[in-house]
Amino acid sequence: MRGAARLTGAPVLRAVDVIGAKRDGAEIDAAELAWLVTGFLDGSVTEGQMGAFLMAGVLRGFSRAEARALTDVLVASGEQLDLSSLTGPTVDKHSTGGVSDATTLLVAPLLATAGAKLVKLSGRGLGHTGGTLDKLESIPGFRTGLDPEEMLRIAEEVGCVVAAQTQRLVPADKALYALRDVTGTVASAALIASSVMSKKLAAGAGTIVLDVKTGGGAFMKEAAAAEELAELCVAIGREAGRRCAAIVSAMDQPLGRAVGNALEVAEAVELLSAAPQGRLAEVVLELATLALVEARAGGEQAAVAGGGERDAAAAGGGRAAAAAGELRRAWTSGAALETLARMIVAQGGDGSVCERPRDVLPTAPVIRDVLAEEAGSVAAVPALPVGELAAVLGAGRSRQADEIDPAVGIELRVEVGDLVEAGAVLAVVHARDESVAQHACERLGQLVALGGDGIAPATVLRRMGGG
Amino acid sequence: MRGAARLTGAPVLRAVDVIGAKRDGAEIDAAELAWLVTGFLDGSVTEGQMGAFLMAGVLRGFSRAEARALTDVLVASGEQLDLSSLTGPTVDKHSTGGVSDATTLLVAPLLATAGAKLVKLSGRGLGHTGGTLDKLESIPGFRTGLDPEEMLRIAEEVGCVVAAQTQRLVPADKALYALRDVTGTVASAALIASSVMSKKLAAGAGTIVLDVKTGGGAFMKEAAAAEELAELCVAIGREAGRRCAAIVSAMDQPLGRAVGNALEVAEAVELLSAAPQGRLAEVVLELATLALVEARAGGEQAAVAGGGERDAAAAGGGRAAAAAGELRRAWTSGAALETLARMIVAQGGDGSVCERPRDVLPTAPVIRDVLAEEAGSVAAVPALPVGELAAVLGAGRSRQADEIDPAVGIELRVEVGDLVEAGAVLAVVHARDESVAQHACERLGQLVALGGDGIAPATVLRRMGGG
Repeated sequence: MRGAARLTGAPVLRAVDVIGAKRDGAEIDAAELAWLVTGFLDGSVTEGQMGAFLMAGVLRGFSRAEARALTDVLVASGEQLDLSSLTGPTVDKHSTGGVSDATTLLVAPLLATAGAKLVKLSGRGLGHTGGTLDKLESIPGFRTGLDPEEMLRIAEEVGCVVAAQTQRLVPADKALYALRDVTGTVASAALIASSVMSKKLAAGAGTIVLDVKTGGGAFMKEAAAAEELAELCVAIGREAGRRCAAIVSAMDQPLGRAVGNALEVAEAVELLSAAPQGRLAEVVLELATLALVEARAGGEQAAVAGGGERDAAAAGGGRAAAAAGELRRAWTSGAALETLARMIVAQGGDGSVCERPRDVLPTAPVIRDVLAEEAGSVAAVPALPVGELAAVLGAGRSRQADEIDPAVGIELRVEVGDLVEAGAVLAVVHARDESVAQHACERLGQLVALGGDGIAPATVLRRMGGG
Repeated sequence: MRGAARLTGAPVLRAVDVIGAKRDGAEIDAAELAWLVTGFLDGSVTEGQMGAFLMAGVLRGFSRAEARALTDVLVASGEQLDLSSLTGPTVDKHSTGGVSDATTLLVAPLLATAGAKLVKLSGRGLGHTGGTLDKLESIPGFRTGLDPEEMLRIAEEVGCVVAAQTQRLVPADKALYALRDVTGTVASAALIASSVMSKKLAAGAGTIVLDVKTGGGAFMKEAAAAEELAELCVAIGREAGRRCAAIVSAMDQPLGRAVGNALEVAEAVELLSAAPQGRLAEVVLELATLALVEARAGGEQAAVAGGGERDAAAAGGGRAAAAAGELRRAWTSGAALETLARMIVAQGGDGSVCERPRDVLPTAPVIRDVLAEEAGSVAAVPALPVGELAAVLGAGRSRQADEIDPAVGIELRVEVGDLVEAGAVLAVVHARDESVAQHACERLGQLVALGGDGIAPATVLRRMGGG
């Protein structure tokens, strides 16, 4: 512990000394970090001091031990969900946010159908990224404001539930994030990892899988930074005694074809109604497989660890193949879609959305096609400006208080590597009125770039865990 | 200017973008810096944002242009003294703070005697460093709380005046320093230089001389850092249209022999009553000579600049020798002491302190000698712990609100390089009571280290300007 000894011998911790130590590149120990964050919450450490500390950490770096300690402090700042009453392994899933990323709507019923219990606390969309709560609330009647008892009841009965994050979990994260957001201190793997993992740990699941996005539409533009974040999150989760795995996936183009809340629900339902296909399905199956293997490996861990790496990998590969097969069957049999419908009904929504999504979900008054002016191969469908354009249409928020329109958005008809003819439909715009529709069509015509090499890029870039 | 263009075309400046630019190592332009600091003062930029910005600047560095711009912002935040009514060149002097540094008490009357006008706004001591106001206030009746009219009147009549800094000058500096003090962001040459120079510029003198201390008892422990600070201050002053010079001087051991308020006044008076001698006198004459040469060179500058560097150096050397001679005469003739007495009387103090300082100044009840236990050469008299010990005796403050005792302190009888016999007096302690006196004597016995090489180190390490 830093600080001068008082005459009584008790150490006196001063914020300025802790800040100075981080400024000079030292590692801050867990007790000091806890003292600092707790002081920030109770006002004895000022906002100015915390701002300076965070900036020192962003520029000097935080160690893995510091990230772990910070996670513990955040978790300890609030309540935690107790999932121990649920039968079967508990699983949670997190994505760092992207465009057209409805994976939760698919991963949750798939894992539930396979016997896992998934209690997922989600957030709302901000900026160019969508939010699972917004998507689900486009289903007539769907409620996301559930209390813990209701969440546990639905999870036990259906196998999965998706609800709004409560203020009672990790309040320190909210306070710290609000400060980071205005002080240029968001971009730190340790700060992001502790924020993500504190929420996951407090939510109580035994197995946690993460989808860390990288590329132009992701928070982490560079794959190396995304990998660092994924590794750090997995390490924090495991050291906290959870089973944890992650993938790094591409977010250069939107993951699915739909960008907009009702449109993404429709896409998820339609995807789950047929055989798995496309990049969104690929990421969904990767995440669900990782989760299932991790969730079921709990009891075997000790035996595998004793058998050497090759045996472990072989055993892991076998388990992964078995889990993947089981999940594919849950998908193609229609069982997962049925589970999704039961979850929607349990949360007050209209379950017939899973049979006739386009009839049940709200639709936009103006629907316009974007046509290819010439033939060519699609070189880019940049996720960031496409997501921003969907927000301009009314599908997203630039501020947290903004209202969204569930019906509007963009349906892409092409992806990178596709060959298109002149006059082919590149995308369909769903808008409130003609004027905004026309603007969006023009913009999309510019954004969907032709002239590529016709080669589709990889979607899942790296896997960590699950073996 | 950073920030997205509004639809109206007007640039929107956001603090988080300015902070992010500095975090990423960019240079912030003058308008942005002004906007940020003004926003901090009016509350639209939060303390957390300013804390993060300052830390980013400390770690990424501020350019010379940023330091200059920041100085301008600070100056513009308050009133400025107008010295234009004074006859003769106006001079100001600043020291970065040290132990046993009564230079102002000597430089001011010397320069006034030589015809300059010195309006010096001073601060109080904090930590191990003394403050000029505290020293002068040990003289019975001496007042430092003067309004600008009174300062100007005394400066015109006597030639020098030393008063307390007013809150109306550079209020932004006070607000910024309060934040830096608790956020570990004090140690930045640019932030220190802008703080120092904003106060000097606002105080209105045409010529500014600086004494930047380096060594164990100084804020800048490393000579390179002190030189960087001195150069930056001189550059800022010159670019603001002032004549500016600086020295870097050693603060490894106390500069004078007395540490404590009345004791330092007595030392200054006694020094000025005889021929200049010792390290304190050396620094005083350096500073006064630099100031006088700079103050008088104003009109000649253009001619010298056209005459080549060698001519300029020769002319500067000649002027410096003339100024030094004049100052020595002011010293040895007793004229400077007389000027000091007149200033003390003009500020309400007992002028007879300049004749019989030990009779007029308060004295401590307990006075004890510290004796050398063995013979040897003095290797070190470390300024920092000696200054801290004087504060423990009651001569200094650990917090700004602490009361001080003007009578207590330490008189050193030796300096580094001196040869002492066993039993010789190393120092004299002036204390409130026996117990604290005994503690101080024991501590001084440990602090004054014997075993050196008998070589006295240099005091003035570098000169900038004055030629």
